[in-house]
Amino acid sequence: MIEKPYLLFLGDAPDQLAAKVAQGIKDWRPEDVVGQFRMEGCKADMGLQDMTIAQAVEAGARTLVVGVANRGGHISDAWISVLTEALQAGMDIASGLHNLLSDEGALVAAAQMHGGTLHDVRIPTVAYPIASGKKRTGKRCLAVGTDCSVGKMYTAIAIEREMHKRNMNATFRATGQTGILITGGGVPLDAVIADFMAGAVEYLTPDNDPDHWDIIEGQGSLFHASYSGVTMALVHGGQPDALILCHEPTRDHMRGLPDYKLPTLEQLRDTALPLAQVVNPACKVVAISVNTAKMGEEEAREYLSDLELRMGLPAVDPYRQGAARLVDALEAI
Amino acid sequence: MIEKPYLLFLGDAPDQLAAKVAQGIKDWRPEDVVGQFRMEGCKADMGLQDMTIAQAVEAGARTLVVGVANRGGHISDAWISVLTEALQAGMDIASGLHNLLSDEGALVAAAQMHGGTLHDVRIPTVAYPIASGKKRTGKRCLAVGTDCSVGKMYTAIAIEREMHKRNMNATFRATGQTGILITGGGVPLDAVIADFMAGAVEYLTPDNDPDHWDIIEGQGSLFHASYSGVTMALVHGGQPDALILCHEPTRDHMRGLPDYKLPTLEQLRDTALPLAQVVNPACKVVAISVNTAKMGEEEAREYLSDLELRMGLPAVDPYRQGAARLVDALEAI
Repeated sequence: MIEKPYLLFLGDAPDQLAAKVAQGIKDWRPEDVVGQFRMEGCKADMGLQDMTIAQAVEAGARTLVVGVANRGGHISDAWISVLTEALQAGMDIASGLHNLLSDEGALVAAAQMHGGTLHDVRIPTVAYPIASGKKRTGKRCLAVGTDCSVGKMYTAIAIEREMHKRNMNATFRATGQTGILITGGGVPLDAVIADFMAGAVEYLTPDNDPDHWDIIEGQGSLFHASYSGVTMALVHGGQPDALILCHEPTRDHMRGLPDYKLPTLEQLRDTALPLAQVVNPACKVVAISVNTAKMGEEEAREYLSDLELRMGLPAVDPYRQGAARLVDALEAI
Repeated sequence: MIEKPYLLFLGDAPDQLAAKVAQGIKDWRPEDVVGQFRMEGCKADMGLQDMTIAQAVEAGARTLVVGVANRGGHISDAWISVLTEALQAGMDIASGLHNLLSDEGALVAAAQMHGGTLHDVRIPTVAYPIASGKKRTGKRCLAVGTDCSVGKMYTAIAIEREMHKRNMNATFRATGQTGILITGGGVPLDAVIADFMAGAVEYLTPDNDPDHWDIIEGQGSLFHASYSGVTMALVHGGQPDALILCHEPTRDHMRGLPDYKLPTLEQLRDTALPLAQVVNPACKVVAISVNTAKMGEEEAREYLSDLELRMGLPAVDPYRQGAARLVDALEAI
């Protein structure tokens, strides 16, 4: 686990979008953040207090989190000097960048000298077991999508927040880099060795209280030719009691695959449910979560209400409408 | 690629079964083998000429292949001395053991000194790409199973042999350790990183002549909770034109999963075909391959003929009956 609270490092982000990891942490775990660190020329701003490394340590920060994508695929000297200062001040560093902290000699040396830890969350650090398929206690919900990047993480974490508001016993389980940095732990599933994928998901969602919900972050899509194997491991390793279908209705082809149309929500339902029932015969599809960001308010409302009629399931955009009806559907199980 | 011909190393195998990798190579690629090397106390025998290292080199052997499972999970000193001698004599060494040749200091040193190569076929050596899903030329057949270890490799390689007998243009594509040692190349799919699984299968089965068949070795099962993600990557990365369903009818639970029943062949067909059609809408299920080793001759014949009626597909045990009818079904596409 990554120690909290965090200082969010925005570096020299060229725009707000480049700092979307920081944005996710600030949106979902504001209580875990003491402030932000911006270098000269930084164009992103989380609206948090700007801090020096010394001020952040004073405020209790335990880990500097790289909340920004690096330009040109390398970690610049300017970054290195800030990160080294953080290590010297006794902080750990966490990053989801492709370029690893542990490949930077200066950081490795500083971490060693000052007893700090470098968390490269793209790299698994656990020897995950082979999945056993054994029935586990507690309840699990998995978000499955018609495509990649349709709002599965957002949906899962919004459900967790709503469940906590209702004093329900629930944990968002991160399976990707951003989710891991937001929660401080999880499994970087796309970097796990094939044989151990489903076992990694079992490890992430172990036996729990009967009333506890694991809300598992989905990855990829059963219909995505590049990543469907990862999704399959989530469906079988996650042993879900409930599936939530996720969709982005304006997309005209699968992400990164111009020759592939998206499946319909009916196809997703009819594919994912029987596969999930292999490991949990009681599994149900309970609701639909739609990312309507590219639709107007009226258009979105109409789309969702038509969809409810068509599929016989609650259909919600949790960003516009909140996750209350998704949680209602899970509570009804 | 592993250089041929091979010397098959049977070591101190306690019985014939311990040398099943050697058996597979001898059964399927006898023309690639110059002889066998047996240590004192070896209880396995491939019926090949026993050779010393010097005799094997004299006969042209390029690679010593470890054709036996090691006892107790470590490579013994007695083995090391034979393997070192082979390296000194100018041979390479290939192994599919869990314990890696490259972890043995003496072998690494000898390989370096004499310019030999250590092939640990469990470990990928290629940086596979992310799958593109792009339509490739040539034809592909994939064996999919109701369970693990139901005869998928045997089926694929028997089809290749029958196609070659008919002067058809065909290549068996290995995706597991034994298959890789038999053919001298392939992808150890269960050891590939999740994000690159489907890309590794695309890499293994690239564009080819319009009349060329890739016969792809299957892995796992879409219904196996531990390994289904690997199977899924084969279905999407393999872009099959034809699926052959593989089954072992006497098994009462999934391999390694005592709580799981096998799916029916109808379930396998109805699950695998729509998933394969995501990447190749023309894909068809063309035949069934059954491992009837645990049935009597009469019982097997009846089972297969009932199955043909039930499923409306040719149903064959390629070990008992040859793969001719499987190839007929592929030729009919």
